[in-house]
Parts: sequence; structure tokens; C-alpha cells
Amino acid sequence: MRIRLSELAGKLGLTLVGQDCEISGVGTLESAGPEDVTFLANPKYDALLATSKAAAVICTEEHADRVASALVSANPYLDFARLLNLFTPQQGSLSGINDAAYVDPEASVDESADIYPFAFVARGASIGPRTKVFPGSYVGDGCVVGADCTLYPNVTLMAGTVLGDRVMIHSGAVLGSDGFGYVPTPAGREKIPQVGTVLVEDDVEIGANTTIDRAMLEKTLIGGGTKIDNLVQIAHNCTFGKNCTIVSQVGIAGSCTVGSNVIMAGKAGLADHLDIGDDVVIGPKCGVRVSIPDGKRMGGHPAMEYGTYMRHMSLAPKIPDLFKRVKKLEKELTALLAASDEGDN
Amino acid sequence: MRIRLSELAGKLGLTLVGQDCEISGVGTLESAGPEDVTFLANPKYDALLATSKAAAVICTEEHADRVASALVSANPYLDFARLLNLFTPQQGSLSGINDAAYVDPEASVDESADIYPFAFVARGASIGPRTKVFPGSYVGDGCVVGADCTLYPNVTLMAGTVLGDRVMIHSGAVLGSDGFGYVPTPAGREKIPQVGTVLVEDDVEIGANTTIDRAMLEKTLIGGGTKIDNLVQIAHNCTFGKNCTIVSQVGIAGSCTVGSNVIMAGKAGLADHLDIGDDVVIGPKCGVRVSIPDGKRMGGHPAMEYGTYMRHMSLAPKIPDLFKRVKKLEKELTALLAASDEGDN
Amino acid sequence: MRIRLSELAGKLGLTLVGQDCEISGVGTLESAGPEDVTFLANPKYDALLATSKAAAVICTEEHADRVASALVSANPYLDFARLLNLFTPQQGSLSGINDAAYVDPEASVDESADIYPFAFVARGASIGPRTKVFPGSYVGDGCVVGADCTLYPNVTLMAGTVLGDRVMIHSGAVLGSDGFGYVPTPAGREKIPQVGTVLVEDDVEIGANTTIDRAMLEKTLIGGGTKIDNLVQIAHNCTFGKNCTIVSQVGIAGSCTVGSNVIMAGKAGLADHLDIGDDVVIGPKCGVRVSIPDGKRMGGHPAMEYGTYMRHMSLAPKIPDLFKRVKKLEKELTALLAASDEGDN
Repeated sequence: MRIRLSELAGKLGLTLVGQDCEISGVGTLESAGPEDVTFLANPKYDALLATSKAAAVICTEEHADRVASALVSANPYLDFARLLNLFTPQQGSLSGINDAAYVDPEASVDESADIYPFAFVARGASIGPRTKVFPGSYVGDGCVVGADCTLYPNVTLMAGTVLGDRVMIHSGAVLGSDGFGYVPTPAGREKIPQVGTVLVEDDVEIGANTTIDRAMLEKTLIGGGTKIDNLVQIAHNCTFGKNCTIVSQVGIAGSCTVGSNVIMAGKAGLADHLDIGDDVVIGPKCGVRVSIPDGKRMGGHPAMEYGTYMRHMSLAPKIPDLFKRVKKLEKELTALLAASDEGDN
Repeated sequence: MRIRLSELAGKLGLTLVGQDCEISGVGTLESAGPEDVTFLANPKYDALLATSKAAAVICTEEHADRVASALVSANPYLDFARLLNLFTPQQGSLSGINDAAYVDPEASVDESADIYPFAFVARGASIGPRTKVFPGSYVGDGCVVGADCTLYPNVTLMAGTVLGDRVMIHSGAVLGSDGFGYVPTPAGREKIPQVGTVLVEDDVEIGANTTIDRAMLEKTLIGGGTKIDNLVQIAHNCTFGKNCTIVSQVGIAGSCTVGSNVIMAGKAGLADHLDIGDDVVIGPKCGVRVSIPDGKRMGGHPAMEYGTYMRHMSLAPKIPDLFKRVKKLEKELTALLAASDEGDN
Repeated sequence: MRIRLSELAGKLGLTLVGQDCEISGVGTLESAGPEDVTFLANPKYDALLATSKAAAVICTEEHADRVASALVSANPYLDFARLLNLFTPQQGSLSGINDAAYVDPEASVDESADIYPFAFVARGASIGPRTKVFPGSYVGDGCVVGADCTLYPNVTLMAGTVLGDRVMIHSGAVLGSDGFGYVPTPAGREKIPQVGTVLVEDDVEIGANTTIDRAMLEKTLIGGGTKIDNLVQIAHNCTFGKNCTIVSQVGIAGSCTVGSNVIMAGKAGLADHLDIGDDVVIGPKCGVRVSIPDGKRMGGHPAMEYGTYMRHMSLAPKIPDLFKRVKKLEKELTALLAASDEGDN
């Protein structure tokens, strides 16, 4: 990939300030070489402009005159992200339905879809236009996969899973596995068949080795635009609103209702049957046991308001000392009481 | 699936009270439509009986006269679970050994087993009657898989893994991976070969992307009837008794001995070499560092008796305030002591 | 596998003390039978020497005269580990490039490598000598896999991933999945293409279902000799030094720099952009929010010095009682102040 800066400016709708040149890569202010484009989004790094070897910098207008070539942007981070599309490494080079794939005679695959060797498309499943199904991925009975989706290698969609358009699922993720439900009986736990499904709306991205269980009845729902990281567990019958951000190793127990624009940081967890409002932010490792109204920011275990949590975090290492202080108080007070008793006598 | 209520009553051994009709699905009291069966297990929902559109309700005798059609049951939740078997979505529609599967000439596969395309059965492995091995699953050298087992897509059984009968393993689970064992040497960590196996007894269910390591010597053992959720880690040489329930994202370090009927909630963890008694219940996110005798209920990190844990949970957000209270006490006591010293003089 | 003890002594460079015999297996002091070798590494178990049925014991010189046959070793645990290599269960029995594998015409596979059925080697990828790629594994476009590597079943290497020599990757691990990066926009989160790679140096072992994301720019780096357990998450742009030990379910957020010989225990987590020094030890479930200098041992959430953490752990269950003690102090002091006021009047 080689492109002139002026052409790049045109593609991204940016203004080139300074000299034109050909570029062939991307990098950080520190790593970029003399054929690379970089960006300055956070003013705290602007001292690096002086020493960067980059051919050009995507930056705001105020920094444009400090470099030889600038692509002036109102949002340099966003425009750099868009630029990166030109340099994304190619994943896969095959097209059409490969002879070494298995497509059931009763499945329906759009002619523009790519089905790789060792991918499996079961009876009654349908695959939309331009969707790519990589090796080792399994599209179960009656699944519906929309347009422009990507199932990276070794993804599993169990029967009945439905994906909207532009859904990207990373390797090893499993959607539609049975929810974890049993009825206790004297002879042990009897499985509750999980007859619901998983529905994933448009523009969702799901991380590697993440698991999303099918509902017991009805559906587990992932709202449009939601982004889920690696190794996340979403139990049966959970529903998410739009544009949530769920970071790695989060665990969400059954039947939670999560609003829109919710952010859950790494390793956070929700107990079952909770109702989490819109715009809630839940901190890393947070253990949530009660429902949370709209807009709250919570942290800790148990979940506390963020201010309380931050004080709690800073005080936790001082708890051993607090025990000493209380013991000292007890001694002093006992002595004082004894003295006061004596004085009374 | 369409069935008359009277026929359904016969299948489940229940009594039909009210009018017969044909039903075609299932739902909750709120979601069920006029051709669906639902259930009432928890009396707190009985107000929903009045507004439910369900064709019929599985409920106890006392509620039977409040609906048009009731299937009377002593345990409505259990009978509803059994009913759900009739509506379970079909997973897979192929039978026999598919031409696109790999079965080693020295493997033994029962003629009633189903081996899907891209499944791999290695040398010396054996697959029992009516067992299903889905696409992308790997049955390693010398593995023994019993009757009526299900290996959903992309399951891996490393060499020597043994499964009893009616074992269900969800997609992406890995059994028999090497335990994490090394001898420190001046040149780095030297691997300890893991020569033991994994043995899974009858009626065990193992969740998606869960990992169970082979023993260093002897075996890692999962006792009969145990149910394990998604993304659980079980390290080498652990042994479980019967009918345990291990919820998602639990992690169990090496050489733990867990009794029967133990429940571990989500994200709980055991340190290595612990002995956990029968009927122990371990709360969510609990970090267990010492062995636990039979019947205890524990929570928190470190694990505490449940009563202590619940008080700890309710007090944790008040700890910042406790620091303030102690500081106030110190000030007051200092003032008092000063005053008392003055008084003495 | 049957071998005479004298021959075994020769292979391992140990001295046989006592009678020679043929052995056929291995076990612990308690489980070993009359044809098995065992070991004594920890003196606290030496009472078991008297009752062990083992044919021979690998032990130090001081214990050699207490058993019929001893293999005298300066480091019995290490020599036992080396002995175990003779008894490792065979994983896989095929050789060469199997007809049911897919190897792209533009890929390069060493003639001594083994590529199993349903393995996929993409365009531009190269596979080194004696490397084994098991069924269901995916080696993406332009990946470079060194010599003597093992990709167990269902491993995914996304495009551009580079492995050194003697790298072992357990089933279901995913390397090179996209980092979790988005730019917030009014229309939702816009994906930042992840154009970097993953580089794994020599002698690294990576556990089952572990995920290691590709960098946004440049590379995510796993230093030589590092051992990573199952279900670990390593986010984009992290770099590790040599010989780290990362235990199961650890999660490491983006752009962390971890030194050499670092140990992270189970379920520990690092926030993003931290700098962790050499020889740091991080305890189980520890939540690290700030950088840690060389050689520190930390535990707890938030991470504290280990001594503080251990006191914190032992005091945590006493916190409810501490609240009571403070309340009692407050009452007593209030009474005292009241009395003192009265006395003043």
C-alpha cells in the first residue's frame, strides 16, 4: 500500500498543510518512520512532534504548522482510525463456496458470500451477501446470518441464532450454547431444555472465545452497535440495549436487562435478574448485586457509587492500621475510665 | 410440533383440568400466546394468571381452577422442564459417519453414532452408541467416549480422555490439555510432562469454552451428575464428587478435592491443594484460600462464613465513614486526655 | 514403555543405588505400584518411603539407603520431570501434509512438518521444521511459525502472527484477534482497525482458550520462555519480557509493559498502560491499578504490598466487629464527655 498524501487527504476529507509526499505505512509519533503517517490526538504528547520521524501527522489546525506535512482534522483520532482501514492486514484470500466447505442442500448461501474450507452451514441456515465464514466455523440449523458479517475461524453458532448485518465475530466465540438451567431433584439436577435463541442486532462485534447462551424461552438479545471483548460470559435471557461496551472477562448472570450505552470494565460481574439503566458505567472487577438506575457510575465489590469506591480503594491498605488505631483508642479509653472511676471514689 | 393438551398430559403423567385444545409452543406467563403452554412455579407471580394469554398452565392443584386449562402438577417447574424437551430446537440433522469426517482406521465408532463432517477421531479412540460428534470436534488418541454423549462443535478431547455415558460437552470446551506445571531452573522454567488423564463420569454437562486440564500423574476427575458452566477453569489433578454445580468463570487451582453437591457461584476461585467438603456453597467472586468442611456456606475474599460475608458486604461502603469516625474519636480523646492532664496539674 | 532402571539411570545421568529391575510406569509415593518409579522432593513426605510400593524412587543421596532401589539426584523433582517425558501420552499419530488439510498454494510448509486433516494454512504463511498443526487449527495469511512448534486442535493464528521455535499452543487459543479499540462518535463506537501483529518468542507455552490480541500499531509481544495458562486475556499492545508465568484467568488490559520473570497468580488483573518491573509477583485475584517497580510482591484489590495484603486478608472478616467496637467507643466517649461536662459545671 503506497499512496500520496494529497490523495489520502481527499479520501478522508482532510486538508493537507505542507508538502505532499508518498506514504506507505502508519505508526505512533515515536515509532513512525519517514514513509509513515501518525497522529496527535492528546495534547500531552505534542512535545513528540519535534522528534517524530513521521512523514505526516494527522492533527488539529493549531499543530499543523509545527510539522512538515499535516492532515488537518477536527478529530485526529477518528480520522487516524479511518486511515487505518487502508492498512488493515488481509484476513483470508479465498472467495465463493470452497469445495472443502460443507453447505447443507437445504441451506441458503448468497452467491457473494465466502465460505471457507471446513466451514459448516447446517440445514435451514441462511448466509447473507458478502458475509465471510472462515474455516472451522459452524452455522447451526436454521441460523440466519445477515449481510457483510464476518465469522472468523472456529466460531460456533448453535441452531436458531440470528445475526443482523455487519456483525463481526472473532475466533472461538460461541453463540447459542445452552443456558445453565437445572431443576434440583432428589436424583440430582435435571436439565431444563433451553428452547430460546440468541438474537444479535446490526453492527455488533463479539470477541474471541466469548460465550453467549441461548435463552430458556424467548431470546438472549444483543442490541445494535454493542461491542463485546474476549472471554466474556453472557448467560441465558440477558438483553442488552444499543451501543454497550463490555470489556474482557466480564460475566453476566441470567435474565439481566442492560440498557443502552452501558460500559462494563474488565472482570466486572452482574448477579442474575438485575436491571441496569442506560449510560451506567461499571468499574473493573466490580461485583454488582442490585439493580442500578440510569447514569450511575459504580465500582467495587459490592458495587458502590464511584466516589465511595475510590475512597474505599485508597483506604483499603490502611485498614490494618485502623485496627491498631481502634485498639489504641480502646486502651486509652479503658485507662481513662479506670482513672475516672478512681477519681469518683 | 403440535400436540393436544390431553396427549401432553398423558406423556407427562399430569391431570388435565379444564378444556382440551391443541398447543404448538411454550412461553412465560407474560409471553405465551393462545397456542402456548406456560407454568406457574412461584406463587409470587400468580397475579399474572388473570392476564396471561396462554392456552394452558402447568400449576399446582390450588391454581387449577383459575385458568381455562390446567395441567396439574406437584412440581410445575420440573414438569415444565420435561415438557420443554418436546420443543428443543434440533441441533444437527446428519447421521452416521460422514464422508468428510476423519476416523482413524484404528478407531472404533459404534454404528449408531453420528460423526459430522470435519470431526476427527484419532487412533485407538472409541465412540459409544448414539453419541454425536459435531463438526470441528477432536477426539484424541485412545479417548473413550461412552453412550449417548454429545460433543458440540469445536470440542477438543486430548489423548486419553475418558467420558462416561450421557455426557454433554458444549462448543469450544477443551478437556485433557496439559496441566500448568514447571520446575524452575536457572535457565527458565522446565515443563513437567503431564502424563495423567481426565475422567468424566456419567451425566456430566460441561459448558462452552471451559477448560479441564489432564493430571500430572493419575487423573483429573469430574464426578457423576456434575454440571459445569461456560469459561470455567479446572486445573490438573482436581477431583470432584457427584452432582456439583460450578457456575461460569470459576477457577480451580491444581490438586483440589471437592466433595459432592458442592455449589460454586460465578467467578469464585479455589487456591491449590484445598479440600472442600460435601454440600459446601461458595458465593460469587469468593476467593477461597483454606479448606472448607462439609456443609459450610462461604462468601467474600478471603472466604468467610456467609453471615460474616453479608455483614461485610453491607459495611464495605461505610468504611470511608468509619475512618472519619475513628479520626473524630482520636481527636476527642486527645482533647479529653489533654484536659484531664490539665485537671491533674 | 518398559525400561530397566539401570538404563533409565544412564539416560538421566543419575546413579542407581540398590537393585536393578524393569519398570513400566510412574506414580506418586502413594499411588506407585511395583513396576513404577516415583520421587521424593519434599522431605515432609519422607515417612511415605516406608509404605510406598514403588519399584524405585528418585531422591537425594540421604534417602537412598531407605529404599530397595534409588536413583540418586541432586534435584529429584527436575529429574522426575525429565523421566516423565518417556511416559507422555502420544498426541496424534499422523505425519506429513494430510490430504484433508488445506494448504494454500502460496504457503510454505517444511517437508518435516505434520499438517493434520482440517488444518488450514493460508496464503503466504510458513511452517517450520517438525512443527505439528493439529485438526481445526488455522494459520492465517502471512503467519510465520518456527521449528518444533505445536498447534493443538482448534488453535487460531490470525494474519501476520509470528511464532518463534518450540512454541506450544494448547487447543482453542486465539492469537492475533483484533484489539478492543473504538472511537466514540455521536453515531456509536467506530472501530479502530488493528493493523499490528502478535510476536511470540521461543519456548513460550500458551494455554487452552487463551486470547492474545494483535496490536493496534506495531506488536503485542510475548517474551521467550514465558508460560501462559488457560483462559488468560492479553489485550493489544502488551509486551512481556522473558520467562514470565501467567496463571489461569488473568486479564491484562491494553498497552501494559511487563518485565521478565514476573509471576501473576490466578484471576489477577492489570489496568491499561501500566509498567510492571522485573521479578514482580502479583497474588491471586489481585487488581493492579498503578505501575509496580522491580521485585515487589503485591496482593489484594487494590494491589498492596504483600505484608499489608496478608494483614488485610486476616482482618477482613473482623471488620463487622470493628464497626461494633467503634460504636462502643463512641458511646463510651459520649458518656464520658457528658460526665466530664457535668463535672465541669
